[in-house]
Amino acid sequence: MRVKKITVKLKASPYNVLLEHGLLHQGGGQIAKTLGKEPSFTTVVTSSRIRQLWGEKLESSLKQAKLKYAFVEIDDGEPAKHLANVEPLLRRFSQLGMDRNSLVIAFGGGVIGDSVGFAASIYMRGIRVVQVPTTLLAQVDAAIGGKTGVNLSEGKNLVGTFHQPSLVLIDPNVLKTLSDREYRAGVFEVIKCGVIRDEPLFEFLENHFALVLRRDETALMRIISDSVKIKAEIVAADEREGGLRRILNFGHTIGHALEADSDYKKFLHGEAVGWGMTAAAKIGVLCGITPVKVEERIAHLVSSLGPLPKVTASEKNMLRLVQADKKTVLGVPHFILAKQIGRVEITNKVQPSMIEVAIRELHKISASQTGH
Amino acid sequence: MRVKKITVKLKASPYNVLLEHGLLHQGGGQIAKTLGKEPSFTTVVTSSRIRQLWGEKLESSLKQAKLKYAFVEIDDGEPAKHLANVEPLLRRFSQLGMDRNSLVIAFGGGVIGDSVGFAASIYMRGIRVVQVPTTLLAQVDAAIGGKTGVNLSEGKNLVGTFHQPSLVLIDPNVLKTLSDREYRAGVFEVIKCGVIRDEPLFEFLENHFALVLRRDETALMRIISDSVKIKAEIVAADEREGGLRRILNFGHTIGHALEADSDYKKFLHGEAVGWGMTAAAKIGVLCGITPVKVEERIAHLVSSLGPLPKVTASEKNMLRLVQADKKTVLGVPHFILAKQIGRVEITNKVQPSMIEVAIRELHKISASQTGH
Repeated sequence: MRVKKITVKLKASPYNVLLEHGLLHQGGGQIAKTLGKEPSFTTVVTSSRIRQLWGEKLESSLKQAKLKYAFVEIDDGEPAKHLANVEPLLRRFSQLGMDRNSLVIAFGGGVIGDSVGFAASIYMRGIRVVQVPTTLLAQVDAAIGGKTGVNLSEGKNLVGTFHQPSLVLIDPNVLKTLSDREYRAGVFEVIKCGVIRDEPLFEFLENHFALVLRRDETALMRIISDSVKIKAEIVAADEREGGLRRILNFGHTIGHALEADSDYKKFLHGEAVGWGMTAAAKIGVLCGITPVKVEERIAHLVSSLGPLPKVTASEKNMLRLVQADKKTVLGVPHFILAKQIGRVEITNKVQPSMIEVAIRELHKISASQTGH
Repeated sequence: MRVKKITVKLKASPYNVLLEHGLLHQGGGQIAKTLGKEPSFTTVVTSSRIRQLWGEKLESSLKQAKLKYAFVEIDDGEPAKHLANVEPLLRRFSQLGMDRNSLVIAFGGGVIGDSVGFAASIYMRGIRVVQVPTTLLAQVDAAIGGKTGVNLSEGKNLVGTFHQPSLVLIDPNVLKTLSDREYRAGVFEVIKCGVIRDEPLFEFLENHFALVLRRDETALMRIISDSVKIKAEIVAADEREGGLRRILNFGHTIGHALEADSDYKKFLHGEAVGWGMTAAAKIGVLCGITPVKVEERIAHLVSSLGPLPKVTASEKNMLRLVQADKKTVLGVPHFILAKQIGRVEITNKVQPSMIEVAIRELHKISASQTGH
């Protein structure tokens, strides 16, 4: 089995993302090979569902590699991603005797990756973490780049750190047990990668749409590795989101506002990004940055993934939420807009009226959708 | 007024420690001068006592510098330094509208500095913090170097980050309202600085003992600035405690065990370090590393600060606690021992029997002490 290796070339702490069907089988071996100092103890944090479905494969590889380990199960829904739930996990770490040379494996989707990565980053001022993402969204985006975070009652991801993993292990096989809805939500982040940096990837999605949706093994390898490469490159250039990294937020300004408006209950993150990209394409046209043809391609690819939960948020509410976004600079919302497929620019020239037009467009599309 | 400036020369983020009697008066101005991007909002986190005593001086300087600010009061006792107390503080930050360009001022002793520094380090993945320490211990040690931390029920400082301040403002005037006990506890950390790196400082303490105890302004400037210089130099050489920084733990191995044995209620941290240095001197002699004359000088200087809370911990308990210390490497306790005044070495050759002898020595000194 030839394992694909993509390096996130951070100066202080470069690390590899390994990608292959069936990689879970050699998880323990790859960890032992990568981590110079063998960890004094390894705690795998996962959900009960993932453990049932895929835990044995990872566990047997840890045994083979002769690692001392324990499994800890936590909830993996968005409500579980709260600061209050981090304390019990940290206490478990201590009770298991974990020290500065111990290792945490975050084995699950985005919620597990974000909150477990956060726990690892603050336990004894930071211990090592290996990310083993089990959703498409986490594999192409969340597990790479070192952003960790949990929610407060006041807002999402208000608390977190930058804490790069020592290794990321991606086994596309685990996507076989992912629900259709979760899977499609991940595809939206792949579309985003195409729009911001990679026209061939975007074209691949346009041309091999059926293969992607049926989770064809070769298609999966292609879309995951291309997305990981883009993320790795951007993160290496701008670890702390001072500049370039902001382009990863294409579709996220409106997307986050949609999530917040619906109290994070209606849309999966990827679905909100799907709507957000359609809106950003429309806004791009209104700003004179996005050609109409490009808008059409983006809107068409998004909508071809099937109906999304309908947008019912009022223009007024959305405007207010966009202006309150964490990513505003002195209250002025910054938008990532597409100049062409594969190239974006950051602008602060978006007028409130343009945002309103875009939201009305989402209302219109929602009304015309069948299903959901 | 000539402000003394000591730079912590970290490659990625160098920062200044400013030191002068009455510096609080110009706090806001110094902050505005140092922080390139003017903070969008400034939250001063302090205790009600410190606010009452010294809050107005800092506040008027913030007004003068035209900074938008708010004061938030929190408890500053060791029990308050718990992870559970960080969440309400982070929620306050959000309610105050703090964003990534906002600033936190930690205005208080070690508990405030550690827990507020921690909160700043995880709010929105890290915002800037200015440390304004108000105890001698915090001024010479805790406020410099970027270590933040809070406690879990399972142990002290089990949770934390490395998060360097943008600026440290030290006004020795605030020590005027410090209790004798708190003040003396800080002097032990100054003695430590002398032992590990600075014989002239140690001699100054020996020769000008009365001046130091009466908090003479010139003596204060001398002991604080010398200690800060040592800390700054060590932190710059080893930000993440990979090597050199460990020498700052002279006296801390036994000290931490004493604190843990008494559930952190009997000794102030500095007092435990006082005992720990006496024990480390004895162990050094037993190991053949510390000359007897050096042991005597350390034990004498420590004891001349007056009686400390008595050591009653059993040898057995202390041994167990030392072996469970966060700083063991694979279960083997590492000790910092003095080769001479101003020079230490790190060794893993300390035998359990030596630790027992040292603890018995502390029992003996405790029995012979008057007072407390």
